[in-house]
Amino acid sequence: MSGNSFGTLYCVTSFGESHGPAYGGVVDGCPPGLALKSEDIQKELDRRKPGSSRHVTQRRESDTVEILSGLYDGKTTGTAIGFLIRNEDQRPKDYASIADAFRPGHADYTYWQKYGIRDPRGGGRASARETVIRVAAGAIAKKWLAERYGVLIRGYLAQLGPIPVPFKSWDVVEQNAFFSSNPDKVKELETFMDNLRESGDSVGARVNVVAENVPVGWGEPVYGRLDADIAAAMMSINAVKGVEIGAGFASVAQKGSEHGDEMTPQGFQSNNNGGVLGGISTGQPVTVSIALKPTSSIRLPRRTINTIGAATTVQTTGRHDPCVGIRATPIAEAMLACVLMDQALRHRAQCGDVAPPIKLQ
Amino acid sequence: MSGNSFGTLYCVTSFGESHGPAYGGVVDGCPPGLALKSEDIQKELDRRKPGSSRHVTQRRESDTVEILSGLYDGKTTGTAIGFLIRNEDQRPKDYASIADAFRPGHADYTYWQKYGIRDPRGGGRASARETVIRVAAGAIAKKWLAERYGVLIRGYLAQLGPIPVPFKSWDVVEQNAFFSSNPDKVKELETFMDNLRESGDSVGARVNVVAENVPVGWGEPVYGRLDADIAAAMMSINAVKGVEIGAGFASVAQKGSEHGDEMTPQGFQSNNNGGVLGGISTGQPVTVSIALKPTSSIRLPRRTINTIGAATTVQTTGRHDPCVGIRATPIAEAMLACVLMDQALRHRAQCGDVAPPIKLQ
Amino acid sequence: MSGNSFGTLYCVTSFGESHGPAYGGVVDGCPPGLALKSEDIQKELDRRKPGSSRHVTQRRESDTVEILSGLYDGKTTGTAIGFLIRNEDQRPKDYASIADAFRPGHADYTYWQKYGIRDPRGGGRASARETVIRVAAGAIAKKWLAERYGVLIRGYLAQLGPIPVPFKSWDVVEQNAFFSSNPDKVKELETFMDNLRESGDSVGARVNVVAENVPVGWGEPVYGRLDADIAAAMMSINAVKGVEIGAGFASVAQKGSEHGDEMTPQGFQSNNNGGVLGGISTGQPVTVSIALKPTSSIRLPRRTINTIGAATTVQTTGRHDPCVGIRATPIAEAMLACVLMDQALRHRAQCGDVAPPIKLQ
Amino acid sequence: MSGNSFGTLYCVTSFGESHGPAYGGVVDGCPPGLALKSEDIQKELDRRKPGSSRHVTQRRESDTVEILSGLYDGKTTGTAIGFLIRNEDQRPKDYASIADAFRPGHADYTYWQKYGIRDPRGGGRASARETVIRVAAGAIAKKWLAERYGVLIRGYLAQLGPIPVPFKSWDVVEQNAFFSSNPDKVKELETFMDNLRESGDSVGARVNVVAENVPVGWGEPVYGRLDADIAAAMMSINAVKGVEIGAGFASVAQKGSEHGDEMTPQGFQSNNNGGVLGGISTGQPVTVSIALKPTSSIRLPRRTINTIGAATTVQTTGRHDPCVGIRATPIAEAMLACVLMDQALRHRAQCGDVAPPIKLQ
Repeated sequence: MSGNSFGTLYCVTSFGESHGPAYGGVVDGCPPGLALKSEDIQKELDRRKPGSSRHVTQRRESDTVEILSGLYDGKTTGTAIGFLIRNEDQRPKDYASIADAFRPGHADYTYWQKYGIRDPRGGGRASARETVIRVAAGAIAKKWLAERYGVLIRGYLAQLGPIPVPFKSWDVVEQNAFFSSNPDKVKELETFMDNLRESGDSVGARVNVVAENVPVGWGEPVYGRLDADIAAAMMSINAVKGVEIGAGFASVAQKGSEHGDEMTPQGFQSNNNGGVLGGISTGQPVTVSIALKPTSSIRLPRRTINTIGAATTVQTTGRHDPCVGIRATPIAEAMLACVLMDQALRHRAQCGDVAPPIKLQ
Repeated sequence: MSGNSFGTLYCVTSFGESHGPAYGGVVDGCPPGLALKSEDIQKELDRRKPGSSRHVTQRRESDTVEILSGLYDGKTTGTAIGFLIRNEDQRPKDYASIADAFRPGHADYTYWQKYGIRDPRGGGRASARETVIRVAAGAIAKKWLAERYGVLIRGYLAQLGPIPVPFKSWDVVEQNAFFSSNPDKVKELETFMDNLRESGDSVGARVNVVAENVPVGWGEPVYGRLDADIAAAMMSINAVKGVEIGAGFASVAQKGSEHGDEMTPQGFQSNNNGGVLGGISTGQPVTVSIALKPTSSIRLPRRTINTIGAATTVQTTGRHDPCVGIRATPIAEAMLACVLMDQALRHRAQCGDVAPPIKLQ
Repeated sequence: MSGNSFGTLYCVTSFGESHGPAYGGVVDGCPPGLALKSEDIQKELDRRKPGSSRHVTQRRESDTVEILSGLYDGKTTGTAIGFLIRNEDQRPKDYASIADAFRPGHADYTYWQKYGIRDPRGGGRASARETVIRVAAGAIAKKWLAERYGVLIRGYLAQLGPIPVPFKSWDVVEQNAFFSSNPDKVKELETFMDNLRESGDSVGARVNVVAENVPVGWGEPVYGRLDADIAAAMMSINAVKGVEIGAGFASVAQKGSEHGDEMTPQGFQSNNNGGVLGGISTGQPVTVSIALKPTSSIRLPRRTINTIGAATTVQTTGRHDPCVGIRATPIAEAMLACVLMDQALRHRAQCGDVAPPIKLQ
Repeated sequence: MSGNSFGTLYCVTSFGESHGPAYGGVVDGCPPGLALKSEDIQKELDRRKPGSSRHVTQRRESDTVEILSGLYDGKTTGTAIGFLIRNEDQRPKDYASIADAFRPGHADYTYWQKYGIRDPRGGGRASARETVIRVAAGAIAKKWLAERYGVLIRGYLAQLGPIPVPFKSWDVVEQNAFFSSNPDKVKELETFMDNLRESGDSVGARVNVVAENVPVGWGEPVYGRLDADIAAAMMSINAVKGVEIGAGFASVAQKGSEHGDEMTPQGFQSNNNGGVLGGISTGQPVTVSIALKPTSSIRLPRRTINTIGAATTVQTTGRHDPCVGIRATPIAEAMLACVLMDQALRHRAQCGDVAPPIKLQ
């Protein structure tokens, strides 16, 4: 399996470049009989869509998904689900300036050095626009997980640059441009972003994702662990530089008597493990936190080199998110959904005849 | 590929339980012609070995590796390298108390619920003793990477519980029981550990690993990214709850003008990216940091349930590391080595005819 | 990796149904820098195209390929190559009669029983029309293999029903509707097919494929053998029931002194091995022969059951090839090309530093 | 996954050389709770064992299996099953003559050219002795398939050199040295083999394998087909040059009206498809036939070249099977078992919620 596919049994393959004709995806391994229509995917794509507020890129894309295969009479048939999302607002000219000067912090340089050739228009294959495929594949996984196991996957912005956004309520997450669970913080975030945008700079973010109702037992020790798969999936998202499960880096300073989640017949008494022990789901919520670096395309001039290695400066004038983390919530949810679905299928392959011996009260 | 193997081309397979007769491993895909002898592996196993100081488990294991295949005349032949590490100090009786009471924070519970059966002796397959296989496989990868590309992979303890251990010098890392790069901190660490051991509790740790001289271009966008593979490999190590590449979670509060590493014809001017951009190595040092949770086997009594779900308490009296992070440095190095070697092979498969267009001065 | 992808490093993913909007494919792992345009793929698709003679299905499809990604300035960039082939001549009504009666010898029944749902229009996913994707992926592999290693892959019809077609000359293969290498046989084949078509029946065929100039050393012992991969690739083509390498089933009655190909400093003196020994290419031509069963869609009435298991009869009135083997030559070539390219990449990943010790004269 | 592993979910990894200390295997993905003891594996190994009659190699190996992991209380735990089979009768000296002269028809030459180094003792990794691992892995698969689904896998010798051995009865297959189902043929086979052995030559064979009670629905279209996996598995066995499913090459001359197996509510009326349609099991017996070439190690002198490419002659004086096909029956059964088990797990992963709509009477 090459680099543009992931998943063992729920397998997602992606292609497309930022300024090519389309992005496309193939979802293979989806169980048959799942009711599915374009709208199920579209509603997730709309959550990630550019141009939905002044705080994100103003590129105009409807991100309309066209399903090409794998459905009959409104249900999945168990065959590969192929789909396209056409690019509508290509402006290759915007990228003349970066065609031969590498943006600091961007994959421009590494693609050039790895392949000796690259599509420079809008970052080509390295564009975060590729995440439309992840969101689409995740939408299918979310729907199956919800209907088959009652799994509920949701995320929120936990920090934007220097501003922590403590969790308050799921109810408001979809009601602001930031996926903030905390309505009191929205004003502060808006002001911060307005200033940031004006300054021409960008900023990082932290996004948290939670999967509830995950049954106990998903995950393959010792290398195909659920948390290992989650870590790979999250780190494969553009701009992600860190991944935590449960207490994450806070575990470092914890004592065992504090970290180890006690159990009673009613269940776990805390969730430092983040829903995973020994690489296997515990039945508690799976909690994941990711760090996204600031966008590398900024309007400020920076030192760099060009495609022949000579010194130059670069500043980016195209349409870019000043904080890629703002639109990252649906992407992180989608990746978690894909991993969970893959592990759900792997689990029932091997352990389909096992009933968990203990039912917690 | 099932859960006990990892790697696409440099593929490692592992088997064995803590109190079974032996651990075994298979390394597949190693190029032919690499000079290799048991000692090359043994010296890395000795760095991870139990009983080497009073601060780690007192289990007595020589961890002697026996290579069973894949060599001829002292060189790898390109065929699968099989090896065994016999368990010598099995004391199944120590585990009577935990045979039916789950240790909080341990995989006891999830194995039981996933499989409906488990080997309870010393954690069975979930034991951190499985990491001998990783260290052995990593030793081979390290040697090849060093000889073929000059890659140098080293790690150190960056924090032990509440005590940060700032990097000082590679020279002293191997000269103390903690893999501390900072000789001034060793006394403090010893005192802390002596008190901790006496208290019966355990503590977490942070370990940093660095790979130098990694050529530009390794890593497969967009899912098989170098950093995604590293994240999976690290998160698959027992007790790891977080992974960072480069600036990691510090990226969240950074501005783009601060995070994005500027370039000159002499190279990058900083390394917030941690040696990876767009999932591809930049040619800078690859820097990784991991969080290890505190050991779940502690001598303090804790609330839990037993194998039929009834309330009970458990305290562990066997021989355990009060901080698994202390011995984690060689393990993290090994996992990084395996990932880099795998990506090195994958890169030259696809891009073997590409010469990186730019040579930095 | 799920069932709609194949290949380890040169990885092909396919989606689409016979009467859906389009077939699509993704080729991942192609080296960068290969000059490629639609025409390179189209010319192979045209060799497989329906309606090109009266002896094959009269479905009218231009089989026009649209490349959606992976190219820049007319060259492959090393990123995933996505492409579409639109279905143009859908006639779902033709399939009303087979929507609930299974054609004997067809996958109708097994899809229904496996998935509990299926797209019955024209065989849905089981249609041999899926092979357009293989031919397109093979076209890219052929081009790379030819330019990089001088590999030449060609096939021909070796038997049609009861009529053997002994090899005569590559020159005429493309000059008749049957891929016959033997011009003297074409008339006989035409007459046979005209009678067959009139009778409403169908017939099997044998196709031979040869890859010349394959370097010595490709293939991964012991399970990832070159011949094992070829066998899987060929057997995965619709209607294939048998695969031979080299002397194939004739080996059964051979003596070792006859079968074992002698060598001199000038090379092998015969090619019973078919270019593969121990799963590794020998440097001789790789020779493969496949058996294709007769088309299951015939105009003669046959006993069968319907989708609720009741007895009925079925006869097929749609547009079908009376001998799927006639159009199989480009498909078999394509599959051989994909396997060889995958193994070429795998070989240079592991053995990129090995120069074959012996140069035959 | 590299070349020494096979299977997606029931994954087998193998290592070892003919004259190294041991062969070893790892079976990953076996469901938990299967009662398993060494004897279950040993009885299959004994069927393949050398030295069991004068018609096979006289190498003295007890082929005793030692299970090292994956079992607890006599049951599989769902973790990796590691096992060893020690080599006991190594005679490296026998191989001095072939250390630098390649046996015609043997992998000696291709290993040398691929890797630039090889273990020449007894064929090293290319030795057919590697098949002990397959037989052991297959024994586990056979037991699970039998207990879980009632699947019964058996094989027999169908032809030895020029002598066809038509199927007569399963009852006698284990009662003669040839796995002949036909007691009337045993005398003829013995005489033939005695003469052959005396002549110093070798001969090919055909082996048939049948799996009964395979449920309908196993197999993943379109590339991961059941028959494609079987073809790869069989072709990966040493000396195999051809694979047929069902009518195989006889399909070429068949008419569709003859080949397409009619159905009634009682089931299929014939089995030309060999139990697989569209890559998915039909519920009928899965029937496979393979061609094994004659042993390449013969006592007759043959022209060859040496390791520096100079002309020489070679004749083999070690202990070799004059017909590797004689001991191939348990190996072919084992490979079929592994493939079926893998597909069984894959099927229930994706289609675990599907009940086949039709129950044949």
